[in-house]
Amino acid sequence: MIKTGIIGATGYTGVELMRLIAGHPGAELRIVTSRSEAGKAVSDFFPSLRGIIDLSYTEPDTKALSGCDVVFFATPNGTAMHQARELLDKGVKIIDLSADFRLKNATEWEKWYGQQHACPDLLEAAVYGLPEMNRKDIKQAQLVANPGCYPTAIQLGFLPLLEHKLVDPGSLIADAKSGVSGAGRKMSLMYHYCEAGDSFSAYAASGHRHLPEIRQGLQSVCEGELGLVFVPHLLPMIRGIHATLYATLKDSSVDLQGVYEKRFRQEPFVDVMPPGSHPNTNSVRGSNVCRIACHQPQNGNTAVILAVEDNLVKGAAGQAIQNMNIMFELPETTGLVSAGCYP
Amino acid sequence: MIKTGIIGATGYTGVELMRLIAGHPGAELRIVTSRSEAGKAVSDFFPSLRGIIDLSYTEPDTKALSGCDVVFFATPNGTAMHQARELLDKGVKIIDLSADFRLKNATEWEKWYGQQHACPDLLEAAVYGLPEMNRKDIKQAQLVANPGCYPTAIQLGFLPLLEHKLVDPGSLIADAKSGVSGAGRKMSLMYHYCEAGDSFSAYAASGHRHLPEIRQGLQSVCEGELGLVFVPHLLPMIRGIHATLYATLKDSSVDLQGVYEKRFRQEPFVDVMPPGSHPNTNSVRGSNVCRIACHQPQNGNTAVILAVEDNLVKGAAGQAIQNMNIMFELPETTGLVSAGCYP
Amino acid sequence: MIKTGIIGATGYTGVELMRLIAGHPGAELRIVTSRSEAGKAVSDFFPSLRGIIDLSYTEPDTKALSGCDVVFFATPNGTAMHQARELLDKGVKIIDLSADFRLKNATEWEKWYGQQHACPDLLEAAVYGLPEMNRKDIKQAQLVANPGCYPTAIQLGFLPLLEHKLVDPGSLIADAKSGVSGAGRKMSLMYHYCEAGDSFSAYAASGHRHLPEIRQGLQSVCEGELGLVFVPHLLPMIRGIHATLYATLKDSSVDLQGVYEKRFRQEPFVDVMPPGSHPNTNSVRGSNVCRIACHQPQNGNTAVILAVEDNLVKGAAGQAIQNMNIMFELPETTGLVSAGCYP
Amino acid sequence: MIKTGIIGATGYTGVELMRLIAGHPGAELRIVTSRSEAGKAVSDFFPSLRGIIDLSYTEPDTKALSGCDVVFFATPNGTAMHQARELLDKGVKIIDLSADFRLKNATEWEKWYGQQHACPDLLEAAVYGLPEMNRKDIKQAQLVANPGCYPTAIQLGFLPLLEHKLVDPGSLIADAKSGVSGAGRKMSLMYHYCEAGDSFSAYAASGHRHLPEIRQGLQSVCEGELGLVFVPHLLPMIRGIHATLYATLKDSSVDLQGVYEKRFRQEPFVDVMPPGSHPNTNSVRGSNVCRIACHQPQNGNTAVILAVEDNLVKGAAGQAIQNMNIMFELPETTGLVSAGCYP
Repeated sequence: MIKTGIIGATGYTGVELMRLIAGHPGAELRIVTSRSEAGKAVSDFFPSLRGIIDLSYTEPDTKALSGCDVVFFATPNGTAMHQARELLDKGVKIIDLSADFRLKNATEWEKWYGQQHACPDLLEAAVYGLPEMNRKDIKQAQLVANPGCYPTAIQLGFLPLLEHKLVDPGSLIADAKSGVSGAGRKMSLMYHYCEAGDSFSAYAASGHRHLPEIRQGLQSVCEGELGLVFVPHLLPMIRGIHATLYATLKDSSVDLQGVYEKRFRQEPFVDVMPPGSHPNTNSVRGSNVCRIACHQPQNGNTAVILAVEDNLVKGAAGQAIQNMNIMFELPETTGLVSAGCYP
Repeated sequence: MIKTGIIGATGYTGVELMRLIAGHPGAELRIVTSRSEAGKAVSDFFPSLRGIIDLSYTEPDTKALSGCDVVFFATPNGTAMHQARELLDKGVKIIDLSADFRLKNATEWEKWYGQQHACPDLLEAAVYGLPEMNRKDIKQAQLVANPGCYPTAIQLGFLPLLEHKLVDPGSLIADAKSGVSGAGRKMSLMYHYCEAGDSFSAYAASGHRHLPEIRQGLQSVCEGELGLVFVPHLLPMIRGIHATLYATLKDSSVDLQGVYEKRFRQEPFVDVMPPGSHPNTNSVRGSNVCRIACHQPQNGNTAVILAVEDNLVKGAAGQAIQNMNIMFELPETTGLVSAGCYP
Repeated sequence: MIKTGIIGATGYTGVELMRLIAGHPGAELRIVTSRSEAGKAVSDFFPSLRGIIDLSYTEPDTKALSGCDVVFFATPNGTAMHQARELLDKGVKIIDLSADFRLKNATEWEKWYGQQHACPDLLEAAVYGLPEMNRKDIKQAQLVANPGCYPTAIQLGFLPLLEHKLVDPGSLIADAKSGVSGAGRKMSLMYHYCEAGDSFSAYAASGHRHLPEIRQGLQSVCEGELGLVFVPHLLPMIRGIHATLYATLKDSSVDLQGVYEKRFRQEPFVDVMPPGSHPNTNSVRGSNVCRIACHQPQNGNTAVILAVEDNLVKGAAGQAIQNMNIMFELPETTGLVSAGCYP
Repeated sequence: MIKTGIIGATGYTGVELMRLIAGHPGAELRIVTSRSEAGKAVSDFFPSLRGIIDLSYTEPDTKALSGCDVVFFATPNGTAMHQARELLDKGVKIIDLSADFRLKNATEWEKWYGQQHACPDLLEAAVYGLPEMNRKDIKQAQLVANPGCYPTAIQLGFLPLLEHKLVDPGSLIADAKSGVSGAGRKMSLMYHYCEAGDSFSAYAASGHRHLPEIRQGLQSVCEGELGLVFVPHLLPMIRGIHATLYATLKDSSVDLQGVYEKRFRQEPFVDVMPPGSHPNTNSVRGSNVCRIACHQPQNGNTAVILAVEDNLVKGAAGQAIQNMNIMFELPETTGLVSAGCYP
């Protein structure tokens, strides 16, 4: 059994990690920490875990945590970078669900996250945990930077187009929509039921923190300079991301469907739907699958790729478990095979 | 491995049964039937099952079905009663999720369901599948009538009060609220997103089909004539039932909390919350738990019991699996231990 | 033109008051105050008012406010009581949408609101602004205590039963459900989209602040001691209250429908629906109507009354305008005649 | 008073038309027709109109309708074209909210709507009722083709870019999202609460009927061949359209904000928001405003225009009233000035 710990398990990625670890046959949860809730039973904080998780929150303590094989950071940005080295030094593997180790360039990171990076040297050592791109490196990694929710769907959707040089890399548009849980379990008027409910809007249209992360990943698989417009929107729903991706095809006679099916045939968590499909976010609710469909309206030169995922699963906690499975040489789907909770 | 089949698996209880059986370590799904969708892949019909269920729908065929150890009916009311005997005769156990075998009294059934009962003699043989009341009988049963969604929450909530004779049995009020999936996957203007969304109303206030089922169950555990007012309401949400139950206490100094905790201590799927709690339906989304809290406003003589469940799980498919586990002498929680999908 | 001002117009009752006054042919908005937003244009704060309201928020200033004919308090509880006397002394009429003047008994108020009342002598002078009960007094009032949202629906629903002595006054149960806007535009985890959305629960089952207000009103129209159990619930929707009311009939052969139709025939904002109806909250969204239906399940001795309203209109701002119309001798429906915003 | 009639007033555009006409000081509703509901009181069909509309549905009868000054068709596509000529011949003006007269090219119409056009000669006479483009022609029109909901938002959003030749007309992308009411009050599994709720997907990505309508309008204001990709999506909400529009700027130093403000300064129902804004659909719920914001991410060469409207108001019934006001020389905002119903 892999001994696991979670730091900062009071948010939505934390509770989702606990749900998934509780159902994982090869891992057990040893420690969950929270500075603010230390001493409180996890199941008092999250009634959905009553009878499932018997632990109480503790203060984050390196000594105790170093008894774990792997520690997940489910903390706000700017926390993991202060605690990672100590745990790594003790031989604990780390999967960080925050943004601290996602960018290779510390200057870029500091620009978007508004603070100095505490350990820029670890940025190079960290492996970006998108298995469909970096499986081999993840297997060897001590420190995995788990991708953001938007970057997962958007990169998976664009990868085949760029890897096969099918599109002009300067023409990418990602019109992405997220359920409210993507913003986390923090209070903000924007996420009040009466503001987010029965309404819809874009946000951060002039620049969102996930932009450099997506650019870094996509640039790494394409020649020529990447040009990407990324506009996120907030959906009146809880879980789910839908990315609608546009790119200009070099040759409009390409067999998009075939390219996508081939690219992802071996991938257990990317599902290319039949031609003409429109994936619904509710088909992946609670599951680790990213479901993709390819369109080419009026057979023109614009590829339209639709990609959905559950932002808390494939976009966060599920992908973290997938990475853990790879790092510990378990079958990659262990603990992640259940069907989505539809309807 | 228990060989299972599902008749009529194109609705919400059907897809939920498939999700649960797919995750059940001791059961496998052999046959799923649908007259209207015969020949179609299940996963084309329900994209959430892509990669999970490889079967195609077939015509309901007794010969093929008789290779199953147990067959679930997820059909509309009035279907199972025509096909049950043939399967029973071949030694197949049946768990019927429709209302066909829930009432003992055929005349009462015919009055509420507006048709003649096809096999009234089986009504007596059928065991009402509420494990918390009838576990022993279920163990021996060939034919289990799986309870309705409202009746499950309402009976579990009232049981301790009546069993311990704590309340006037003539004073019961069940103000119950259900998510829309309780009405099934059928088209009706009432369930159109623009009608059911962002709105709320009661329905069938003068009499709902679940009333005789609840009365039958509660009457069986109480002396004196039961008086029950049951008002169902439609919630603008997908899954979940919340029953708010009122009864007049004979003695307002009773320790309700203690009574409930003791009654359900051994029950794996009934969770009595701490004093002062208000269970949320989202704490049981996708899980088989019925979560209950006890209140006694202003220490008066009215007991207020709050009970929540997922109408598709403990209120339908999950309870059916629980019954299957009992009938086949598996640990009762097999395949039903996962945490709710919160948020 | 009635010159109006609003104190504390940054919440949902405030923005609704502005919407209604903007559409009122006999009133104009002169001043809107907010300590926190002083200097900011109202339409920057509430984009729905762009092009509708040209004012900016100002600091609450008695001198400026005393140029108004009437001032609405849309402030949190405990604010109006500190500023009311000064305005009254200057001849300004006050309609307070908070709870400060709703209870006649200062001790009771202090118990439920957890603070000392600043001007208990005004409690007697204040008129409780439920026109269907107190129209005559409202006409003469200088200070109107606008009813709470739950108390409006619940009192209107119970009134005919009690006024006609049709029920045992000790047997009342109000199972009430409110949309999230009833809690106001304040941040709380409970109102986060991911907590309140697609879920349902009761709250404050052991005692809610609206209880003494409802009791005071209903007690005033009945003989014998009132016994009322009131359980509020939070609905996953924005606007709307649904009260499901239960009471034990003294004589089950009474013509409930006739009693209700007669009682409210002259009331412009209470609509008794035809027999067998179930009012939907979406039928009153944005309108000042309280819509009521009467049921008597199985012709038994329990009356079940269903009452819906928009908590921000008949339950708050609309009723305040109705009271203003009465106080200034305008036709009572002035500015309140528009149809609900359905769907 | 303008005497108005509505043909086919049992859907969402019909009920919205009735709501708006009821509040219009210069128009009265004389006749509402419905073949299926003839004889039934409108307010029995739509409880939100109880006390507002006293009419009953009648069979559509040309003689009776010819007493109207203007008749609105709120019928499914393919109905108005059979009845329009007769009414026009009697001097009745027509505002058709269906698609029958929106395209100038009958062949194109027949291709997208799958039926023969009954009166192709009227296509030329019909005026496309987008006042911001065609105000002068609308003033003279006998027959107005009221624009579709998507086309209204998308054309208003793109107009300034094309009129001023700021973008490559072959580069347009319209990623549009609509609330469910845009699909009308008809039953389809796609609009079932459990399918449309808490989920999101694209639909008709390979071609939607509004595409030729949008192309026709935009082509008319631009040189060079228009290239437009239009991908509609279904939002889990009731009212509201959000169009996110992308186009490649010829010169990235253009002052987009200035161009938009100038273009729409005189338009009563187009509101250009301050720089950096993201309009919410809830800010226009129930109102006739189209609210627009301009973005230019990273100051690059992609213009991103955000446009919101209420699909039932500016996208249907409200725009129809606006057209009526123009045709009858009333102030254009008559009956359309109320604030949106927020929250």
